[in-house]
Amino acid sequence: MKFAKTHKDGAARAGIIETAHGNIETPAFIPVGTKATIKGVHPHEVKDIGAQVVLANTYHLFLQPGDELVKKHGGLHKFMNWAGPIVTDSGGFQVFSLGAGFDKSVSKMGEKKEVQSRTPAVFDEAILNEHGKLAIVDDEGVSFTSHIDGTLYRFTPERSVEIQHNLGADIFFAFDECTSPDADYDYQREAMNRTHKWAKRSLDAHRRNLDSKQAIFGIVQGGRHTDLREESSKTLGDMNFDGYGIGGSFSKEDLGPALDAGLKHLPEDKPRHLLGIGEPADMFEGVARGIDTFDCVAATRLARNGTAYTLDGPIDLRKEPFKEDMNPIEKDLPDSPSAPYTRAYLAHLFRAKEMLGGMIVSQHNLYFILKLVDDMREAIKEGRFEEFRKEFCDRYYV
Amino acid sequence: MKFAKTHKDGAARAGIIETAHGNIETPAFIPVGTKATIKGVHPHEVKDIGAQVVLANTYHLFLQPGDELVKKHGGLHKFMNWAGPIVTDSGGFQVFSLGAGFDKSVSKMGEKKEVQSRTPAVFDEAILNEHGKLAIVDDEGVSFTSHIDGTLYRFTPERSVEIQHNLGADIFFAFDECTSPDADYDYQREAMNRTHKWAKRSLDAHRRNLDSKQAIFGIVQGGRHTDLREESSKTLGDMNFDGYGIGGSFSKEDLGPALDAGLKHLPEDKPRHLLGIGEPADMFEGVARGIDTFDCVAATRLARNGTAYTLDGPIDLRKEPFKEDMNPIEKDLPDSPSAPYTRAYLAHLFRAKEMLGGMIVSQHNLYFILKLVDDMREAIKEGRFEEFRKEFCDRYYV
Repeated sequence: MKFAKTHKDGAARAGIIETAHGNIETPAFIPVGTKATIKGVHPHEVKDIGAQVVLANTYHLFLQPGDELVKKHGGLHKFMNWAGPIVTDSGGFQVFSLGAGFDKSVSKMGEKKEVQSRTPAVFDEAILNEHGKLAIVDDEGVSFTSHIDGTLYRFTPERSVEIQHNLGADIFFAFDECTSPDADYDYQREAMNRTHKWAKRSLDAHRRNLDSKQAIFGIVQGGRHTDLREESSKTLGDMNFDGYGIGGSFSKEDLGPALDAGLKHLPEDKPRHLLGIGEPADMFEGVARGIDTFDCVAATRLARNGTAYTLDGPIDLRKEPFKEDMNPIEKDLPDSPSAPYTRAYLAHLFRAKEMLGGMIVSQHNLYFILKLVDDMREAIKEGRFEEFRKEFCDRYYV
Repeated sequence: MKFAKTHKDGAARAGIIETAHGNIETPAFIPVGTKATIKGVHPHEVKDIGAQVVLANTYHLFLQPGDELVKKHGGLHKFMNWAGPIVTDSGGFQVFSLGAGFDKSVSKMGEKKEVQSRTPAVFDEAILNEHGKLAIVDDEGVSFTSHIDGTLYRFTPERSVEIQHNLGADIFFAFDECTSPDADYDYQREAMNRTHKWAKRSLDAHRRNLDSKQAIFGIVQGGRHTDLREESSKTLGDMNFDGYGIGGSFSKEDLGPALDAGLKHLPEDKPRHLLGIGEPADMFEGVARGIDTFDCVAATRLARNGTAYTLDGPIDLRKEPFKEDMNPIEKDLPDSPSAPYTRAYLAHLFRAKEMLGGMIVSQHNLYFILKLVDDMREAIKEGRFEEFRKEFCDRYYV
């Protein structure tokens, strides 16, 4: 993997990530195909609406259908019929978020919930069962029960790398502990230190595989604490990763400061990914600070529930006014795959619980976000990123 | 609408139906888009896999979103973004089948259930509520409650025609009473006579609309009784319909004799549609006897449940052996939209409850049936229909 910055506009950057399966022009949005499918969208459609790269989830694919079956296909590219670049996450976020009970919403802004992760001296299955917890962390790794059937599994950094080698993505992430934004300072520090040790072990495990063409990214953690974020940035930045991710759950107010601190010591010449963020305003925040790539399930999750992005903000097509609305979702996006359909027709599909509603709006929402990031990239190249940001955000109302 | 027979091979025929929205080469299979969408398949994909024409259901569209909204779009073609020919049924089958409680399975072969339709002298809402029935028929029409919200509605032949004018399909059907195959002889005769009167009223109501470019088909009924089928064939055949449908629910054994009798007196120069039938063996039965077109939900309904057509018969991809099966659904159909995917991947999608499984297999099953009917048409043109039938059926195992 190679990365070349081609343009700067303030801290915002445009560039190209070269992978074995093709180039990614950055900034780029990466649609999420959790279980090796972008929900409701055929792979050739994902490409047609402008996606350069997709992301799949290690945790889900490990549980179902298993990384060995994916390997038998020659990796994710063949398994899911996607010839372009693929990214896998480390499984850390899912192990903790599906276990620790913290907020799983799209924006990753947590409701207040008790933080469940803890550090028992000895892993104790009885405790796990007794407390009904899905994940227990220790310094070596994490033991967790499947959210599908309750089977007990264990991830370590080495195991996560092994699984991700089997999945065969072009870019994958070091195993990390993803904390709740509500965890206290001491716990955030403890988890961050563990993430740093796991990052080193992930990197070592990967570099031992001399044949691999895969690139490994380390994940900066530290929660909402800027001193921890800076420390994590420095520690990870000094390791020889191929790129970096900014992990964790953020509230709207935390995102900017966490990014400033988390990016501070990362090498300029390596790509930076912001994990799990894909709302327009958040992406502008990220790109403005030098983030190169994003992934997020919001576009397709909202779509399946009937919410479509427009340039004036999201609309819920299940609401009364859209039943007889003869306009397309967004008349100012005539190239959207949704352009041939009226809001009234789509409202009908959602009310009638027809698959096609979610299918069309999923394509539309992905197209919307992909085009937005394309437009950001062009604006950076032309030195008018902040101008474009203002123009877009003045109209877009959440 | 014009119809030209171009080839004969025994009683089997090939021809062309010309409509205002394009030609239909027959024999033809018509995918069903009940609520103005072929479930799980984009309209352009329906076209790409070989569909020439689609069918939508009057009953469902009347209830949701309402025929007036469809009319406001300029008719179904614009509403559902399908530029080719469209057929609507009369609503009769749904009014009775969703009401009378007889079998709604794909093959339309009924389990034994009590026939609920009856003929009260005066329509009595109290009786309807008391008996929990959804449909009560009288000589003027049918009163029924919506399967969605229980609202009481009434269809007459004139109302069905009015709704179908609003929907604006190229071909639509006269309103009929569709009986259960278990109804006794006397009831079948009574219902048939009513269907004949309704056919005349539908035809008259349609011909009063002088501007209409729509074609109207009459529906032959008569259940499993060949004398009734012959009588219905004669009576309807003498009316000046643009084409004909063979209606009713059949058991496997009844289909051949019912077709022989039902087609007996229909004019040779008008197209004949077999309603709700689409299993390969049944379509061979139909084409061999001179049926020109078919519609059926089986291909997409089976697909959503994980069953895929192969040349050796249907397979249920949710079953254990397919979990690690590295073959495509049907290696002898390399142009199927399912060709890039292994059975193992599709099995994973169904187990993971991912939309894409049903989406891919729906396309595959439709492609399979459409190609089968294409192949029948070519075989008729080459005078080897029975040879092709034997070749296909020797391999295909249900």
